[in-house]
Amino acid sequence: MLIAVDAGGVEPAPHQIVGGVIKAAHEYGVDIALVGSKSLLHVLAGRSLKKLGISIIEASQVIAPHESPMKAVRSKPDSSIVVGVNLVRDGVASAFISAGNTGAVVCAALLNLGKIPGVERPALASIINLIPSAPVLLMDAGANIDCRPSHLVQFSRLGSIYVREVLGISSPRVGLLSNGAEETKGTQLVQKTYKLLKKTDLNFIGSIEGHDILKKAADVIITDGFTGNIVLKTIEGISDSWLFSLRQAGAVFAKAYRLPSRALHRDMGIESWAKRLDYREYGGVCLLGVNGNIIKAHGRSQAHAIKNAIGTAKRMVEQDVLQKMKEGVSEQANGSA
Amino acid sequence: MLIAVDAGGVEPAPHQIVGGVIKAAHEYGVDIALVGSKSLLHVLAGRSLKKLGISIIEASQVIAPHESPMKAVRSKPDSSIVVGVNLVRDGVASAFISAGNTGAVVCAALLNLGKIPGVERPALASIINLIPSAPVLLMDAGANIDCRPSHLVQFSRLGSIYVREVLGISSPRVGLLSNGAEETKGTQLVQKTYKLLKKTDLNFIGSIEGHDILKKAADVIITDGFTGNIVLKTIEGISDSWLFSLRQAGAVFAKAYRLPSRALHRDMGIESWAKRLDYREYGGVCLLGVNGNIIKAHGRSQAHAIKNAIGTAKRMVEQDVLQKMKEGVSEQANGSA
Repeated sequence: MLIAVDAGGVEPAPHQIVGGVIKAAHEYGVDIALVGSKSLLHVLAGRSLKKLGISIIEASQVIAPHESPMKAVRSKPDSSIVVGVNLVRDGVASAFISAGNTGAVVCAALLNLGKIPGVERPALASIINLIPSAPVLLMDAGANIDCRPSHLVQFSRLGSIYVREVLGISSPRVGLLSNGAEETKGTQLVQKTYKLLKKTDLNFIGSIEGHDILKKAADVIITDGFTGNIVLKTIEGISDSWLFSLRQAGAVFAKAYRLPSRALHRDMGIESWAKRLDYREYGGVCLLGVNGNIIKAHGRSQAHAIKNAIGTAKRMVEQDVLQKMKEGVSEQANGSA
Repeated sequence: MLIAVDAGGVEPAPHQIVGGVIKAAHEYGVDIALVGSKSLLHVLAGRSLKKLGISIIEASQVIAPHESPMKAVRSKPDSSIVVGVNLVRDGVASAFISAGNTGAVVCAALLNLGKIPGVERPALASIINLIPSAPVLLMDAGANIDCRPSHLVQFSRLGSIYVREVLGISSPRVGLLSNGAEETKGTQLVQKTYKLLKKTDLNFIGSIEGHDILKKAADVIITDGFTGNIVLKTIEGISDSWLFSLRQAGAVFAKAYRLPSRALHRDMGIESWAKRLDYREYGGVCLLGVNGNIIKAHGRSQAHAIKNAIGTAKRMVEQDVLQKMKEGVSEQANGSA
């Protein structure tokens, strides 16, 4: 199994990417191809890549974080994002991970891999894991800003299959994110989607509200990419403050009682919360619905997050999640709603 | 100054409402009218209401939390919500506070008070105060689910005046909530609103993202009522977990070091965080744009939150925020954008 990793962007720094890749090579024993410019060689100088199963694939161009996605993908065929996606298309790599321009990753995947037959719009699926043993999937995390009801129904189907395969939940409960639990609440989009979801064979439990997200009221939380992106970034922002308050509480206390604050943090479980609260730890979000395994890592990913994203990719490949998506969508097309 | 308080709902419990009202009467020295059924007399038995300036105004009907707003308001003219709003309309009360059915409060206010001339859609303005000394206003918090760009521009104007008067910020920075900072990001609604906001005389700083909310990147955060409601409830939900993690950290540590956990919480500043994280402490959200002072308290308000909402109402009346809104909107109509 070869996993390709984008090392062409400016953000995160190449040494974080390389650090994560080396960790993953040790931990997971998969072959990894770094996709980027020759300057990578500089970062990697003196490391024994071959022994670790790490190779470098040249990509001379770079797509910057704020470039217009479609334009950038079309005008930069030798960018690390396009080269990486094409490695998956050509069967050279089993998956591609990028922490770069999200729109460009989505766009390159759509253009060069295409969609799973029956899927109108691929979407980003993000696992929220703040509360121990209660991970939930939120999608769309930002790929589709203006959606139609049929798109949200497909997200529900793709998300259910993903949660079943990756989190091992046999009949994932699907909740529609809204401003109230009643069928009559929500935007036109939400109300129409509610009616459609009721008719599917999915385990649709109705609408859920913002305060239900961390309560594991549903296993799959469905929303449009605009709302999903804002909700996820709101959670990220609050997590930073949360972490700050925990660490501050520990520091204040350590000082008052003249205790070593490192031990204190450990004793109070602060570091285990910190790990969960740090989105840099997350294993990336999966682009579901395209015909290949594409994972988007956080733009501010550090080595550990890159390593985790490679772990996610390995799991997707091993469990053949893509094939199960195709079967699930084709069953739907054959009549089960 | 007489402030009317809805005591007719089932949730929160009448004794919480009455408790808050008695606290407020002591602290603020305002006259308060409890609006509800005679059963209130039972709760109040034995208390010296007159001395505290608390009166009871009979309302024989109740609108339940999940009743259809328009239908309920029309069919229940003697409900506590309708009676309370009418006290404001008739000049008997300076403000009305309800923790009941949000839609019914908005609907009764629209029907019976009407809008400030020039306002198309009143909106709920919520102050988020999680981070010390960095309160921000988010609106719409849930009154308008499907919005047009012109509505969002008016929310920006109403919110700016409110923040100027209530938080004392002379030129509040207005940020538009979106999935990216660029003008090209966002739904059609957001992109069109961005263009309109640029042309106003407001201190519009562009789009902000979810992780900017607690960073005080803007003083007034503008969004539609659907997104606003979800964001606020997401923050509420996470605050509960945050508080739990802080208290748990304290308890684990107290046990390990055999310390009294109450002193520990105090020493670590946990209780001061707890106060901020508890939405039950908040002073309610204001319905801006209607022709009267209407405050919606949280459905799960406890006595303390009701007291704080009365404090908010008093400030609005004293600073004549309503009149300043009218002037601000009429200036806009006269050409300054």
